[in-house]
Amino acid sequence: MTDDHGEPSGRLTHVDEHGKAHMVDVTGKAPTRRVAQARCRVCTSGEIAPFLASTQGGIGLIEEARYAGIMAAKRTSMLIPLCHSIRIDGIDVAIELEEHAFLVTAVAAITERTGVEMEALTACAASALVLLQPVLEVDPRASIEELTLWHKSGGRSGVWQRSDSKTMRGGTANPNRE
Amino acid sequence: MTDDHGEPSGRLTHVDEHGKAHMVDVTGKAPTRRVAQARCRVCTSGEIAPFLASTQGGIGLIEEARYAGIMAAKRTSMLIPLCHSIRIDGIDVAIELEEHAFLVTAVAAITERTGVEMEALTACAASALVLLQPVLEVDPRASIEELTLWHKSGGRSGVWQRSDSKTMRGGTANPNRE
Amino acid sequence: MTDDHGEPSGRLTHVDEHGKAHMVDVTGKAPTRRVAQARCRVCTSGEIAPFLASTQGGIGLIEEARYAGIMAAKRTSMLIPLCHSIRIDGIDVAIELEEHAFLVTAVAAITERTGVEMEALTACAASALVLLQPVLEVDPRASIEELTLWHKSGGRSGVWQRSDSKTMRGGTANPNRE
Amino acid sequence: MTDDHGEPSGRLTHVDEHGKAHMVDVTGKAPTRRVAQARCRVCTSGEIAPFLASTQGGIGLIEEARYAGIMAAKRTSMLIPLCHSIRIDGIDVAIELEEHAFLVTAVAAITERTGVEMEALTACAASALVLLQPVLEVDPRASIEELTLWHKSGGRSGVWQRSDSKTMRGGTANPNRE
Amino acid sequence: MTDDHGEPSGRLTHVDEHGKAHMVDVTGKAPTRRVAQARCRVCTSGEIAPFLASTQGGIGLIEEARYAGIMAAKRTSMLIPLCHSIRIDGIDVAIELEEHAFLVTAVAAITERTGVEMEALTACAASALVLLQPVLEVDPRASIEELTLWHKSGGRSGVWQRSDSKTMRGGTANPNRE
Amino acid sequence: MTDDHGEPSGRLTHVDEHGKAHMVDVTGKAPTRRVAQARCRVCTSGEIAPFLASTQGGIGLIEEARYAGIMAAKRTSMLIPLCHSIRIDGIDVAIELEEHAFLVTAVAAITERTGVEMEALTACAASALVLLQPVLEVDPRASIEELTLWHKSGGRSGVWQRSDSKTMRGGTANPNRE
Repeated sequence: MTDDHGEPSGRLTHVDEHGKAHMVDVTGKAPTRRVAQARCRVCTSGEIAPFLASTQGGIGLIEEARYAGIMAAKRTSMLIPLCHSIRIDGIDVAIELEEHAFLVTAVAAITERTGVEMEALTACAASALVLLQPVLEVDPRASIEELTLWHKSGGRSGVWQRSDSKTMRGGTANPNRE
Repeated sequence: MTDDHGEPSGRLTHVDEHGKAHMVDVTGKAPTRRVAQARCRVCTSGEIAPFLASTQGGIGLIEEARYAGIMAAKRTSMLIPLCHSIRIDGIDVAIELEEHAFLVTAVAAITERTGVEMEALTACAASALVLLQPVLEVDPRASIEELTLWHKSGGRSGVWQRSDSKTMRGGTANPNRE
Repeated sequence: MTDDHGEPSGRLTHVDEHGKAHMVDVTGKAPTRRVAQARCRVCTSGEIAPFLASTQGGIGLIEEARYAGIMAAKRTSMLIPLCHSIRIDGIDVAIELEEHAFLVTAVAAITERTGVEMEALTACAASALVLLQPVLEVDPRASIEELTLWHKSGGRSGVWQRSDSKTMRGGTANPNRE
Repeated sequence: MTDDHGEPSGRLTHVDEHGKAHMVDVTGKAPTRRVAQARCRVCTSGEIAPFLASTQGGIGLIEEARYAGIMAAKRTSMLIPLCHSIRIDGIDVAIELEEHAFLVTAVAAITERTGVEMEALTACAASALVLLQPVLEVDPRASIEELTLWHKSGGRSGVWQRSDSKTMRGGTANPNRE
Repeated sequence: MTDDHGEPSGRLTHVDEHGKAHMVDVTGKAPTRRVAQARCRVCTSGEIAPFLASTQGGIGLIEEARYAGIMAAKRTSMLIPLCHSIRIDGIDVAIELEEHAFLVTAVAAITERTGVEMEALTACAASALVLLQPVLEVDPRASIEELTLWHKSGGRSGVWQRSDSKTMRGGTANPNRE
Repeated sequence: MTDDHGEPSGRLTHVDEHGKAHMVDVTGKAPTRRVAQARCRVCTSGEIAPFLASTQGGIGLIEEARYAGIMAAKRTSMLIPLCHSIRIDGIDVAIELEEHAFLVTAVAAITERTGVEMEALTACAASALVLLQPVLEVDPRASIEELTLWHKSGGRSGVWQRSDSKTMRGGTANPNRE
């Protein structure tokens, strides 16, 4: 179990003994099933439901955002220099409507020697950017908020679950869903 | 000047008369200089300066994040399905250290028929994901916050400047810098 | 007007004087507006409407295919070695249901020194492959048929319109639509 | 053996219980050797042999098409949103000349948890597009026909072989070749 | 004319006033025709002609290397972080056989606000890597030598021509060829 | 042990029985740990240390080159047509300053059915191109030299070590480092 103390300590695994960042060599590790869930919100001062209703492309927008997230997850290693190229076993992106926000949830699963957190976070970020684009036409102050890890399992650190959240408590999405 | 009212209205330019999303045809528009600035924070409950000091790769991390942002901006149209492929004239990403956050600012400039907002936002998102990765090793609750447009100029809507911000007031970065 | 005689003649523009294929140098040409429309069918012995109705993901499938086509058009130069990298001004993909087929139509427009035919054809091919994938689960004999250019305008050769088609006559899509 | 009845039935594996398309989670499956062969024709009203003879780049064109197919197979997951990223063990593209057509055959092999049909089909499509490009200069009515699966083995459904074909009977390529 | 003195001086254009590398903003510059030629050798202790003759794929190898170079030139901005995405007007790669080496020459032309040197050099590097791969099977000591700029024209600095070369004098390729 | 005789012999593994190059089918091979080290120099007539000191971006340049090399290694199969897509377990790029050159060393490790030499060489080439770009501003005659394999282990041929080098003897980098 990874501590959830928020205190930096020890040496990061992606820095070598000379202080140079490099891509961690995972050769010795055994491939195991790992799952990560990430989330974020696309927030606007306007109301989401009428916004979507006013555009016949509303359903298309949700689908566009989901596909963009799935495809971005597959190219995470092209976006994050020190991320390993991994084969994602499964990836899903769900988008829920709230009064003033889209809630984006991405779940990614792998059977690899390294974690899948960055893939889930990258999927969320890409989906959120797709949703943000048309919202900016009517609300240039709209923003992406609390892009964060929500749940992970597998690997050395076992299961970790975000215990609470300032803005996300009471959400309807099931964090245990994979 | 684009209204900053946050109210959805009218028809979105990327939806055609049948309600199908498509890539807007910008043929008729004249190429003009456009600039957009976007920002976000990578927030942790730990302290940023000791975190970086404890890792000799700290400077490398900042550079890695900056390059990842610059490269992500160049592939925005591969991440956002309906974004046009554009030639970015210039892109810069700056990362400032705050007590509990990295403040990421990206400025992108083009001479094109379409805006550059998504490129600046995508650069911020990618840089923030790079910074978030090592922070998650010590604080899995770390998050990316307020990824938002800060300034834009050029195109039909002229200059728009975010007038204030809950979390970003008093920032030291100069929004006029290009 | 390009002749429609189907007889090879003269020297191809992408072959140099020594018979080596290379990427044609278009430096001298002036950028002009060019539009191309391409089409194909994804054919199955089963019935399309019940197939889609039996899957709640049917609407999503259509959207997935459209976005895949749009994104593939933007990376045509990465797929076709001798194609120029161009900025597509607009791209649209429409998918119509027939009794035993999906009819895919892609229209692409540019303001460049070279044609946009390959981008429209590549969009059709990618959309058709996305549609074909789930159909293969129930009909492994399903196929993509008559992937072909339907209309083009702009450039030295002016307007060209496919005058008839064995399988596509009477189609409901408007070839003049851009 | 997969049924070859062409009748939709059951629920597609890439649609979840809520009808949302997602990338199928293949975690539970064991990696096995799978092979798929796909084919298509690039058809023109002109004659292929004189067409190639009239261009010294003819041999280069065949090679260009083969390499484009091989490279496209490796990026199938970037073109088809719900395709898994897989490591292709081997891929080969053969191009045969017929009187009025190029016959393109692609064979792909993997040792993975998911099939390789889309990779073989994508290789065929990309090779065919490369061949089509110069043919369009002399015959804008040229088309890609019968892009279809020809043979597959491995996975749950075992060996499947296309039993006949309207246009491809008597072909010289050996469908058993891997 | 750019000086050819080999002495570092002044401030590099891709470093801003705070010493941070960024992508140079080329907004103010007018697009002009620019051409660059680069070269390198793939050297082996074995003899090239028998090496190619012993493999029926020899001609294919030359074509593979040429296409790889052309395609790499188009993605230079994805490989070199601070390179601008540009539309290459034309690119050609020629490969000549010497007794113990392949001589690779790439010429790239653009009409842009920035130079095309890196595209020509990247094309050479990719072609050379393709040629090196099979040579390594028989001579693991083979190497790529003198990858260097040979000629450039256009832009502020006008025409520059490499005046001589330790290893490349007397070469048969025409540096004026574009 | 691979012979180091520099004499072509036998048939290359990437050429099939008909002399057509294809992507070698590695299905039968067992995944094993393989490591490759490659090197090159970026040579200039100027002095490297003052060159870097004259630019505050000097440290950034080294980091940019290292990240570009790491990212290029991950996309080797997109640059070299017949290379397999592989998951790199670890990749590191080190850059040392010499009086008139940057010495670039890349080490890549995999657990796969095929070698990792091309990935190490591609990383070197990309890092060297990044370093070359600013040097060309002051010395257009600068060049990349002796891009070559230095060490490899794993696979059928076991350990191979370059025994000496015209230009690289006495280097400070440790060829055994992984």
